[in-house]
Amino acid sequence: MDIGFVGLGRMGQGVAENLLKAGHRVTVWNRSPGPVAALTAKGALAAKAPQEAMQGTLLFSLLASDAVMRQMGFAGALLDAARKDLIHVNMATISPSFALELTEAHEARGLTYVSAPVFGRPDAAASGQLEIVAAGKKAALDILQPVFAELSRKIIIVGEEPRKANLLKIAGNFMIAGAIETMGEAFALLKKGGVDAKLFHEVMTERLFTGVAYKNYGGMILSGNFEPAGFALKLGLKDVNLARSAAEELTITLPIADLVSSHFRDALREGWAEKDWSAVGALAAKQAGV
Amino acid sequence: MDIGFVGLGRMGQGVAENLLKAGHRVTVWNRSPGPVAALTAKGALAAKAPQEAMQGTLLFSLLASDAVMRQMGFAGALLDAARKDLIHVNMATISPSFALELTEAHEARGLTYVSAPVFGRPDAAASGQLEIVAAGKKAALDILQPVFAELSRKIIIVGEEPRKANLLKIAGNFMIAGAIETMGEAFALLKKGGVDAKLFHEVMTERLFTGVAYKNYGGMILSGNFEPAGFALKLGLKDVNLARSAAEELTITLPIADLVSSHFRDALREGWAEKDWSAVGALAAKQAGV
Amino acid sequence: MDIGFVGLGRMGQGVAENLLKAGHRVTVWNRSPGPVAALTAKGALAAKAPQEAMQGTLLFSLLASDAVMRQMGFAGALLDAARKDLIHVNMATISPSFALELTEAHEARGLTYVSAPVFGRPDAAASGQLEIVAAGKKAALDILQPVFAELSRKIIIVGEEPRKANLLKIAGNFMIAGAIETMGEAFALLKKGGVDAKLFHEVMTERLFTGVAYKNYGGMILSGNFEPAGFALKLGLKDVNLARSAAEELTITLPIADLVSSHFRDALREGWAEKDWSAVGALAAKQAGV
Amino acid sequence: MDIGFVGLGRMGQGVAENLLKAGHRVTVWNRSPGPVAALTAKGALAAKAPQEAMQGTLLFSLLASDAVMRQMGFAGALLDAARKDLIHVNMATISPSFALELTEAHEARGLTYVSAPVFGRPDAAASGQLEIVAAGKKAALDILQPVFAELSRKIIIVGEEPRKANLLKIAGNFMIAGAIETMGEAFALLKKGGVDAKLFHEVMTERLFTGVAYKNYGGMILSGNFEPAGFALKLGLKDVNLARSAAEELTITLPIADLVSSHFRDALREGWAEKDWSAVGALAAKQAGV
Repeated sequence: MDIGFVGLGRMGQGVAENLLKAGHRVTVWNRSPGPVAALTAKGALAAKAPQEAMQGTLLFSLLASDAVMRQMGFAGALLDAARKDLIHVNMATISPSFALELTEAHEARGLTYVSAPVFGRPDAAASGQLEIVAAGKKAALDILQPVFAELSRKIIIVGEEPRKANLLKIAGNFMIAGAIETMGEAFALLKKGGVDAKLFHEVMTERLFTGVAYKNYGGMILSGNFEPAGFALKLGLKDVNLARSAAEELTITLPIADLVSSHFRDALREGWAEKDWSAVGALAAKQAGV
Repeated sequence: MDIGFVGLGRMGQGVAENLLKAGHRVTVWNRSPGPVAALTAKGALAAKAPQEAMQGTLLFSLLASDAVMRQMGFAGALLDAARKDLIHVNMATISPSFALELTEAHEARGLTYVSAPVFGRPDAAASGQLEIVAAGKKAALDILQPVFAELSRKIIIVGEEPRKANLLKIAGNFMIAGAIETMGEAFALLKKGGVDAKLFHEVMTERLFTGVAYKNYGGMILSGNFEPAGFALKLGLKDVNLARSAAEELTITLPIADLVSSHFRDALREGWAEKDWSAVGALAAKQAGV
Repeated sequence: MDIGFVGLGRMGQGVAENLLKAGHRVTVWNRSPGPVAALTAKGALAAKAPQEAMQGTLLFSLLASDAVMRQMGFAGALLDAARKDLIHVNMATISPSFALELTEAHEARGLTYVSAPVFGRPDAAASGQLEIVAAGKKAALDILQPVFAELSRKIIIVGEEPRKANLLKIAGNFMIAGAIETMGEAFALLKKGGVDAKLFHEVMTERLFTGVAYKNYGGMILSGNFEPAGFALKLGLKDVNLARSAAEELTITLPIADLVSSHFRDALREGWAEKDWSAVGALAAKQAGV
Repeated sequence: MDIGFVGLGRMGQGVAENLLKAGHRVTVWNRSPGPVAALTAKGALAAKAPQEAMQGTLLFSLLASDAVMRQMGFAGALLDAARKDLIHVNMATISPSFALELTEAHEARGLTYVSAPVFGRPDAAASGQLEIVAAGKKAALDILQPVFAELSRKIIIVGEEPRKANLLKIAGNFMIAGAIETMGEAFALLKKGGVDAKLFHEVMTERLFTGVAYKNYGGMILSGNFEPAGFALKLGLKDVNLARSAAEELTITLPIADLVSSHFRDALREGWAEKDWSAVGALAAKQAGV
């Protein structure tokens, strides 16, 4: 298939490379030129402007934030340059309200917008082991399913409204953040009380909390080893704040998210922006002086 | 072995019966007579007063709270009536500070106190599948290990200070409560946003959150089926408040525990005291009007 | 002076009328025509478009939110139509970050932007008894001082950076919201405990808490009389959320603001959006069932 | 009148001295002998044991906490030694639940218990300018009113149930703590944003927040001068925790109290236990790095 790709961060590089491996024609664009060169060396075509990546059947985007996408014109002018029947697959974790705005902006121009945020770190992107959470028009999803299969180990279809995929993704990251915070507080309590937090972690992850979220992040908190980051703390804060904004728009409350957001900001002030987001789980012990 | 047993609630009955099955001589006492009769029918001896249960090698206790134990005299006068080398194994979830007080009160009288709180619901107690978290003098634990083996599928030794076993247990229940609250908030967010919370739960518990805490409690929250309670909400609140008190004594903070305690109280005002404690996870959706 | 005025809500009408009374030539614009007619009856000129109100020496604006101002073009295109040396005085409570953006957008076009948010309800606007919190270039403030004097009983100059006036205003409303919330919780505690909350309010406001914030809002909470609103609850939530956003941008935490924001949302779900914002102080008692 | 006095801390000394000045016969007891000597030099009689102070018409007590009073036997054995018709006036800030327990223990022995906690610092105690919040049997209060008048500038009668006076007092200190915390957060926000917090404090305390709580404590926070303490931070934490416990017993929530309690503990870890409790208002700025 003829596919454009905009946004070659660590995640984007892995995804784009898998599209190449699967035999697609991939035209890439990125703000900084380094990643573009790396991909053209593997067979990608370089776009001089984002518009050039919007002339195929599909456009994948994986940009940093709502603000960056808005600034580039994805909610307006930039779309006027796209091929008339383009399907735009946005893998970034954006706000549900911006997803709705994008949906309407695309529809107004006869384009199709699909939200397809992912669970998984850069290594999962590189190895085609992502979990893709997708929502959009059924016709578009039918076209996308075989492509998604080349990139992922699991595809979760949330429905026809793109914003719903984003809400599910955000809720997932909120769950992880809540787990990190809770572990951090529990570890601080135990350490201050003279109890071996590693023993506790072993016991808890043996049956009650066997999942990766508790095993891996708990182990990182206890080891104090947060670099290199699988997912940077500043991005974790961004996602927790997306959950808070979504809650505000829906007129509900997420007290855990408010709490976690505060602690993420405390962590930023510690200078931990680029550490793995599980570092926020080390904050409680640090604040407790243990 | 000659074993006394005080406190025949749902958990205590299962434990005492397993001691009988293992061939021990078990002398039981309980405030209300019903459970005593049930156990004497299975071979236990009935004590007319708690003191009568304190004349063997071991005393097991599984009473409701610090306050009940204090009122019965376990931190003072009652101990004067115990056999001189009695080992007292307290399986209740009590506060670490009370465990310390009990330790000192026993030592002052030549007795040995062991904290041995458990993870597991009444069915695990009945089937000998508890996880026992034990701390106390090594000599006493050496004697207890084979007895614990008759009651449990796992024994976790935390050290020689009994209070540490209680702190670990409390931290464990705090972790579960934090998970229930976080799921409850996530589900409320999704429901209010029109996303299928069951799909979300399936996705999250497939890899990131595979443990029993998320699978079982999450399933209960989504089904709305909280009766009969495996662990009553009012007891969940008691344990979360033990975590808060422990944090206060250690001069640290547990903001998640404060939050969860507030929501447990909201749930009590809903009349949910006897429901399973996972019902607190249904509160966020109820408050959100979904 | 030749003054334009955009935004004739309840506050704006009072301010505009005082400008007329002071003898200025006032050209008014408003989205809905009703308030325009009321003011032209009192001597104002009607502008057909906002641009027409930007041809005098001063432009006053008092619009609903950052979003409305952005949509109208105040951070961009709309300014191109302004008289070259226009001083724009914005009395709305907007975010400090948007104030900075407005400052830069005006400077880029040779215009001057001044933030001048106010303390005071519509009756204070009408009677010229506002407290004006102003920040902007000294030369502009020198011109504005006599005009402000016609509108207010007090002028507070915060400096030359307009955003600082907005931050001070937001912090002030945050203080009031914190007081309302604290009183609400205290009253709920007392009522649930059978103590006369009115007696408590009398005692506390006699010496420790004599200010208007405690006397008036406390009295309203106790009377349960929140209509008509002096300041609508939905606007109170907007301002508290401005404080939260400002805190996020400054990488600090405002836990009281998070808490109060949650309770404001609970109040919105009760259908209290148009009640006075002190109604949020009645929420704790309602939730407590008293 | 023949009056016993137990508990000669800084507050107690002032009260006892005023009783002496008013011409009463005052028999004093204190754990440490220093304050006893100071008062006998002014005409008081020294009791060798608390019981000796319980043989007059009235007993005043002003001890440190529920725990100290319980340990001394005020809820039990100690009362057996009291004169048969003794009226016990307890000026300490204790928990409402302990006040209830004391009430019942006194009544069971034919004694009368009155709760009479006070607002005011040691200088107000010394100058007879306290505000006394009293609750107890009307007959006892009728006897006490003229004595209270010698000690105070205001007497607030809450009713016949002593615990209600304690609840009102606790709610009052909770209000002050909430004000300190809110100011602390507002000041941190402003400082981080480059706005003069002193100007803000002046503006806010001019009309909206004129009371002593905002003027004095706000001034202390801004000056950073917290010594000597008028009311020590560790005692402030004790009182906020009394509010939290009262809320738990009444099955309601006090989220502001949870928050403030956490920050008081943060302040304790800073080593601020003996500073004035308004120091907790300096914590937000410190944590924000300004």
